[in-house]
Amino acid sequence: MLFSSSNDRRFFALLRESAENMVEVAQIFSEAIENLDRSREYAIRLKDLEKKGDRFTHDLITLLNKMFVTPLEREDIFQLAVRLDDVVDGIEATASRLSIYRIRHSDQYIREFARIIQSQVSEIVVSIELLEKKELLKIRENTVQINVLENQGDEVLRAALGNLFETEKDPIHLIKLKEIYETLETATDRAEDVANTLEGVVMKNA
Amino acid sequence: MLFSSSNDRRFFALLRESAENMVEVAQIFSEAIENLDRSREYAIRLKDLEKKGDRFTHDLITLLNKMFVTPLEREDIFQLAVRLDDVVDGIEATASRLSIYRIRHSDQYIREFARIIQSQVSEIVVSIELLEKKELLKIRENTVQINVLENQGDEVLRAALGNLFETEKDPIHLIKLKEIYETLETATDRAEDVANTLEGVVMKNA
Amino acid sequence: MLFSSSNDRRFFALLRESAENMVEVAQIFSEAIENLDRSREYAIRLKDLEKKGDRFTHDLITLLNKMFVTPLEREDIFQLAVRLDDVVDGIEATASRLSIYRIRHSDQYIREFARIIQSQVSEIVVSIELLEKKELLKIRENTVQINVLENQGDEVLRAALGNLFETEKDPIHLIKLKEIYETLETATDRAEDVANTLEGVVMKNA
Repeated sequence: MLFSSSNDRRFFALLRESAENMVEVAQIFSEAIENLDRSREYAIRLKDLEKKGDRFTHDLITLLNKMFVTPLEREDIFQLAVRLDDVVDGIEATASRLSIYRIRHSDQYIREFARIIQSQVSEIVVSIELLEKKELLKIRENTVQINVLENQGDEVLRAALGNLFETEKDPIHLIKLKEIYETLETATDRAEDVANTLEGVVMKNA
Repeated sequence: MLFSSSNDRRFFALLRESAENMVEVAQIFSEAIENLDRSREYAIRLKDLEKKGDRFTHDLITLLNKMFVTPLEREDIFQLAVRLDDVVDGIEATASRLSIYRIRHSDQYIREFARIIQSQVSEIVVSIELLEKKELLKIRENTVQINVLENQGDEVLRAALGNLFETEKDPIHLIKLKEIYETLETATDRAEDVANTLEGVVMKNA
Repeated sequence: MLFSSSNDRRFFALLRESAENMVEVAQIFSEAIENLDRSREYAIRLKDLEKKGDRFTHDLITLLNKMFVTPLEREDIFQLAVRLDDVVDGIEATASRLSIYRIRHSDQYIREFARIIQSQVSEIVVSIELLEKKELLKIRENTVQINVLENQGDEVLRAALGNLFETEKDPIHLIKLKEIYETLETATDRAEDVANTLEGVVMKNA
């Protein structure tokens, strides 16, 4: 395994940019839920970043198809890029629902989800740095942490649903909030999918 | 990579038949949404085609398990067959919901989804032809197009939900239509999963 | 492929324990739905078993990362462990919803789902035994059966939804039961994912 050619460097640069874009998406989402009167504006901003992420993924695939030797197995890198994209899509989808459903008030559950997602995304960024530095076995620490955070997300969803069904009597508003919570929990699941993909890569290459 | 033995031909014949079955499913679905007074009849017809698709997948797996040398990696072909099956299942599941929920009127969103799915399915058929002709690198054009169509599906879902929550005041009817739209969007996601599987195959073999 | 070292034995022991834990989870779930007045108690018990399952998965991954030679491809085993975990998570998630939503009455659909899941789980256990005994080609019989059961789950969901939308006029109660049914159907889908992963392993190694 050689991580030295100029293509390899370009490849990791793209992967890093994709991960950094994901961090920005998670940060702006945290901002968005504190400014729900401007949810439409935030949704548009996140949509733009999501498209930017798509372009990184596209460039990465084009590069992979040109590279003769790749630092990791071509297909694993592809899977990783697709999974990173899924996290961004998940966050952006929630922001879009907040806007479409005209949700005007954030709550402790939405805030807790935003915090969990930000933490997961930070762990993913570190993992990708370790991948580039070939410190594969260290990655397990981060993937374990991403899983712990996903379990927390599951707990938040349960608390949120319990509270929602106990207090909300308007079925249509209940449907909206239920979907917001579930979409957020799905975003934490997708971060776990990234962790699982990373673990698979480590297993093949360590 | 040799695509020449009689088993290879039989193998690609099965994959093609599976893809053609998927095209038929998408076409009949488009017909079904214009004849919702006969939704039960259409649901039964699509269920039959779905079962027919299951048999192709089954035969393909049996053949794969017997073949000593396969044109592509055995497991990739298997994944591809499973993913094709998922698209058919997704379309059939929506047709079933239209019948179970006694939806009597189609709308612009449902029609737009049907058009997107038909286009995705056509791209998949072309991809499988290119796979057989060993023109692997050309497949990327089709998979990119399938992704573009999936993004359109996402937009249609958002427009549909926005309109639904603005106009529909009966929560039970809202729940039904929300599920119809979401099931259709999931079908477009599954077509994207086929595209991702195809890209993976290209990466391994190109 | 050699399944003989002490590490291999430990590895299959962990996989077996994980599968047996899954069997227990499915059994206790069947008990839980007959004692819904104690749903909270059952939910807690299943959560404990789910955590126990997580520890098996964790130990398995740690062992895999240490083993120099593995009985199967490291990544396939990892995928299998993750998928087994998903089945347990799915059953436990339903038990949690029964408790959170204070569902007090079981019905024929919930019972039928519980029966299907128990059968699927039994087939998975047999498959893993066959995997250890290296009787890979026999596994197909079990995976086909798991798929048949998943199709049954799909039929149960449709019957359950048809009945629910015909009889339930309270939208909030309808939302609760709809989610219970769908979560159960998802659990049968996850058992099918295990079957697909097993088929993939067979294809690579048979």
